[in-house]
Amino acid sequence: MSTHHHLQSGRRRLSSHHSLDAADDYVAGYAILGSASIARKLWKAMFMSGNSRVVCVASRDTARAQAFIDECQALLPFPQAPEAVEGYEAALARDDVQCVYIPLPTALRKEWVLKAAASGKHVLVEKPVGLNTEDVQEMIQACIKHNVHLMDGVMFMHSARLQLLQKTLPSLGPLRRINSEFCFKANEAFFQSNIRCSSATEPLGCLGDLGWYNIRLTLWAMNWYLPVRARGCVLKENADGVPYEFSGELLFESGCSATFFCSFLTHETQLAVLNGEEASVQYSDFVLPLPGRYLYFDVNHQSYQQEGLDQVVHSYSERHHVQEAGYGHPSAQEACMVRHLSDLSREGAGRPPSGPSRC
Amino acid sequence: MSTHHHLQSGRRRLSSHHSLDAADDYVAGYAILGSASIARKLWKAMFMSGNSRVVCVASRDTARAQAFIDECQALLPFPQAPEAVEGYEAALARDDVQCVYIPLPTALRKEWVLKAAASGKHVLVEKPVGLNTEDVQEMIQACIKHNVHLMDGVMFMHSARLQLLQKTLPSLGPLRRINSEFCFKANEAFFQSNIRCSSATEPLGCLGDLGWYNIRLTLWAMNWYLPVRARGCVLKENADGVPYEFSGELLFESGCSATFFCSFLTHETQLAVLNGEEASVQYSDFVLPLPGRYLYFDVNHQSYQQEGLDQVVHSYSERHHVQEAGYGHPSAQEACMVRHLSDLSREGAGRPPSGPSRC
Repeated sequence: MSTHHHLQSGRRRLSSHHSLDAADDYVAGYAILGSASIARKLWKAMFMSGNSRVVCVASRDTARAQAFIDECQALLPFPQAPEAVEGYEAALARDDVQCVYIPLPTALRKEWVLKAAASGKHVLVEKPVGLNTEDVQEMIQACIKHNVHLMDGVMFMHSARLQLLQKTLPSLGPLRRINSEFCFKANEAFFQSNIRCSSATEPLGCLGDLGWYNIRLTLWAMNWYLPVRARGCVLKENADGVPYEFSGELLFESGCSATFFCSFLTHETQLAVLNGEEASVQYSDFVLPLPGRYLYFDVNHQSYQQEGLDQVVHSYSERHHVQEAGYGHPSAQEACMVRHLSDLSREGAGRPPSGPSRC
Repeated sequence: MSTHHHLQSGRRRLSSHHSLDAADDYVAGYAILGSASIARKLWKAMFMSGNSRVVCVASRDTARAQAFIDECQALLPFPQAPEAVEGYEAALARDDVQCVYIPLPTALRKEWVLKAAASGKHVLVEKPVGLNTEDVQEMIQACIKHNVHLMDGVMFMHSARLQLLQKTLPSLGPLRRINSEFCFKANEAFFQSNIRCSSATEPLGCLGDLGWYNIRLTLWAMNWYLPVRARGCVLKENADGVPYEFSGELLFESGCSATFFCSFLTHETQLAVLNGEEASVQYSDFVLPLPGRYLYFDVNHQSYQQEGLDQVVHSYSERHHVQEAGYGHPSAQEACMVRHLSDLSREGAGRPPSGPSRC
């Protein structure tokens, strides 16, 4: 896919994802706080969204912000180059910024979500949103008070696949077991210098970086009912007490149980299995979709039958798919996420939803 | 596949599974104690093994044994029809019986394993072998004392797929997470009358009937190291205290953790996932193979890369397969199991292995 194609696609609003007519040229301006690696993906998502642009990138060190901008502009240039600004406060003060994207380390998020809200900016914040429930509640209250939207950066929530899965879930019967894994095997450099291994910046370690997705998928599937019991085991941590590998289990009042596993030490896997009384769903890219133009999940059916002298397994799978690019395209989940927040920001003063919906 | 073909295949010994030359016509005689449903499958397995035959079926009620024999002979007749005998003792007393197959309820197994051993018969016993470790130890000691072999009826242990998986495991790197599910959704009749719901016959419920396989696969993969910690949760049980749904976790000294789930309430699933530091193995029929001429497992690789502005998932799977029928064929795991015990019984007085090997 060429950059030229990107440019065209990015300009074309996807009618299925917004409520504006083609004549409407509202474009939300974003400030990016810091230049975390994930912000490159968001730059492209903002570009691809069709209703967003990067206005500025803020850093304590302007040169660093400029280098980030130069790098991204070289790959995918906004017609009006974003500005490098010194300090996050300066970004929040700008009138041409409606939304702030906060990919700062988790330990710093609360401070800047509160300041962004106080500046009247809508907030897109990386996950985990905070270090504990109290902090997150405080952020939500601040956004309500200042009439701005708060969205966390869980991209899969904005995928058309999740909408299709929602329609498919009833055919599984009541859910009885949810099982998910999200892991990658980090290298030595990661363990020595990545912020995700430091208690000062990411004290939740793999649980915040990976397990957040496991838990999010589980709660989504359970329609946001909270578990009545939860159990977790840090299987491996560093000297700083930062979890490197974690196994958890959530038990729900309905009788459904959910197990999950996340790790910086285990080969890359992002398996999701939802077992119902009638059928099971399975897919192996529930966070970061596989490349391509389609995302899918499989509904699996097995039955064991005695036939004559044999015990026979009858098995079939249905593959359900949506036309949605895995990444880097206007249809991709990260572009949908940004487009959604920009749409909300255009609609003016907003409030965070009183409770999350399944999609 | 016609019965005629079965007959031919059953006569032909599979050279990869035995150590006898074609001229050797040793055939082990089996007594089947009772007429449990699973015994139909074993009848066929004995037929298909090529070195075994059913000599007699014993029951407290001879008519019941005769009905079972008539049903099976109609489908797959041994040249010399097995005899119906009254009482299990009578079967153990026969000189033409070298091996006894014990598919009685778990609560009755110990008594008849001990009696079979005392009668000098090799024992094939359904799983779970006993209700607790002490009982199983006693059975093992009795078989050692009487110089007979003791084999439990875990068919997948005898599959060529497991041998291939054993060769493949090192490529996964050290194992970090094992995840398995074995479930079926029982109907009302099952809950009301099946022996697996009665504390008198099967007090271990789903844990004995299904979880046994989960644990076996896990211990096999861990090369029989026992976990340093084990945790289990009965998620659902009946008034009798018989588990209907169970979630467990085993933690190993190596750092590997294993979760498993078994249920009489959840849609049929028999998923096995072995996650290593370098790759993962996955297959969805680890107990009862899917029909067909091949059994397989997939080795999955994913990696997450930052490429330009994109986060890209690279993914590929290798399918490893063996030529082995899912069921009802001389190559099937249940026929291999019987063939193996019959071979051992031919080799004369034996002893149970001092410790299990991976295959």
